[in-house]
Amino acid sequence: MAHERIDDLQRNGCRIIQRPDLFCFGMDAVLLAYWAGACVRRGSRVLDLCSGNGVVPILMDARLPDALRAEGSVHFTGVEINPASVDMARRSAAMNGQDGRIRFLEGDIRSVCRGKLAAGPAGQHGEMEELLPGSFDCVTVNPPYMTGQGGLKGESRDKAIARHEVLCTIDDVAASSADALKSGGHLYMVHRPHRLGDIFQAMERHALAVKGLRMVHPFSDREAMMVLIDAAKGGRTYVRVERPLVIYQEAGVYTEEVRALYG
Amino acid sequence: MAHERIDDLQRNGCRIIQRPDLFCFGMDAVLLAYWAGACVRRGSRVLDLCSGNGVVPILMDARLPDALRAEGSVHFTGVEINPASVDMARRSAAMNGQDGRIRFLEGDIRSVCRGKLAAGPAGQHGEMEELLPGSFDCVTVNPPYMTGQGGLKGESRDKAIARHEVLCTIDDVAASSADALKSGGHLYMVHRPHRLGDIFQAMERHALAVKGLRMVHPFSDREAMMVLIDAAKGGRTYVRVERPLVIYQEAGVYTEEVRALYG
Repeated sequence: MAHERIDDLQRNGCRIIQRPDLFCFGMDAVLLAYWAGACVRRGSRVLDLCSGNGVVPILMDARLPDALRAEGSVHFTGVEINPASVDMARRSAAMNGQDGRIRFLEGDIRSVCRGKLAAGPAGQHGEMEELLPGSFDCVTVNPPYMTGQGGLKGESRDKAIARHEVLCTIDDVAASSADALKSGGHLYMVHRPHRLGDIFQAMERHALAVKGLRMVHPFSDREAMMVLIDAAKGGRTYVRVERPLVIYQEAGVYTEEVRALYG
Repeated sequence: MAHERIDDLQRNGCRIIQRPDLFCFGMDAVLLAYWAGACVRRGSRVLDLCSGNGVVPILMDARLPDALRAEGSVHFTGVEINPASVDMARRSAAMNGQDGRIRFLEGDIRSVCRGKLAAGPAGQHGEMEELLPGSFDCVTVNPPYMTGQGGLKGESRDKAIARHEVLCTIDDVAASSADALKSGGHLYMVHRPHRLGDIFQAMERHALAVKGLRMVHPFSDREAMMVLIDAAKGGRTYVRVERPLVIYQEAGVYTEEVRALYG
């Protein structure tokens, strides 16, 4: 369709439909899919909030061990508020033959709680049961990073919603995740380090216990530009700060760890 | 005196008296003095809580630029609850000729608030004014890391108090620091990463805004073993996660940054 392009994800031949006038995925999504990959087991139900064009579940499915993917026991559900993004996400999954394992629902993540989403515009009979509170093993989310209205000038409303906390704050993400997760299930999030105070507050408020952080640095001698967060529903906060994830070993040359991510 | 030893701090000829049966300083104290060094300016008043044998102010004073130290305008106050440690700290400062710039008070850090410390056992007339709330530019603290009574078996009471939150919790540290600091003053703390949740909660409760974190990793590919925290009194939380501080470049060989710290 107009404005669209198809990008190769360099992983099992998977491709993704994107529209630069909406929001294209970046390294954030790639790192989140990698960070959350550890949570997936046989039979896992994974919920992706603020799903955009669906890159996180599409990548996570593409990264499953072959036997597990063939078995088809792992299911992903993406929730996204922008109907054009949901449409692209569905077409990408279908193009990649992933539509039996990944579905996308149009809706407001604030309605995920209390099973309300299934009554929304994309609600289909039979979906309600899985969106009941406490039904997911794992939640992934690459939420809007920016507070308030700062930087909105010149952006389209769609881009603003994807980047700023217009329709979805960290507190909304934590509340919806806590509702969606089983006890002991994990929330995996990518965010900006400067929001760590708000992140810890929101997790505490919704009884999500931060278990792991990984700081992402562009170079080993530069401040972190992203943080990967792992929090569990229930239990106590006991933070393991993993080894730093460094993107470039020198200008323009990815580190070995990042090269492996890009296949 | 019995059980004591004198260690060279490898910085301007400064030495420190330690007793292994109490608590000897480790790399934590050295890194804290380095981390907090950025706060010191002409005329700064620095308060060190949980001061132990006084290593943090002794090192910070030893690291002052020569002109600033000669001028004598920077003053350090250490507060420590163990009288034997206070006695050693005072003798170390005197031995190094630092006693005009560093003083040590015996007392409970929970009494620092509301100017109560000056009425404690070490209270001397004239000290009260400086311990009034809002009178310090900078607080440093290397507090007990462990919660509750875990690991107390086989430790002396003195060591237990230095290591466990028996007499001083993260909340006590934040409360006393918030009381002691001027508006805009900074608290510099070293702690264990697994307590980051409690640290953010305590800071939030006492209106201290986390401004900086630096993770300390033994090797670049290992999880963090310490975290350095910088929080300001007032303002809003906006966390800058500095480049990782790595201790060893290979087994037994310090990185360049750490070698520089040990002169």
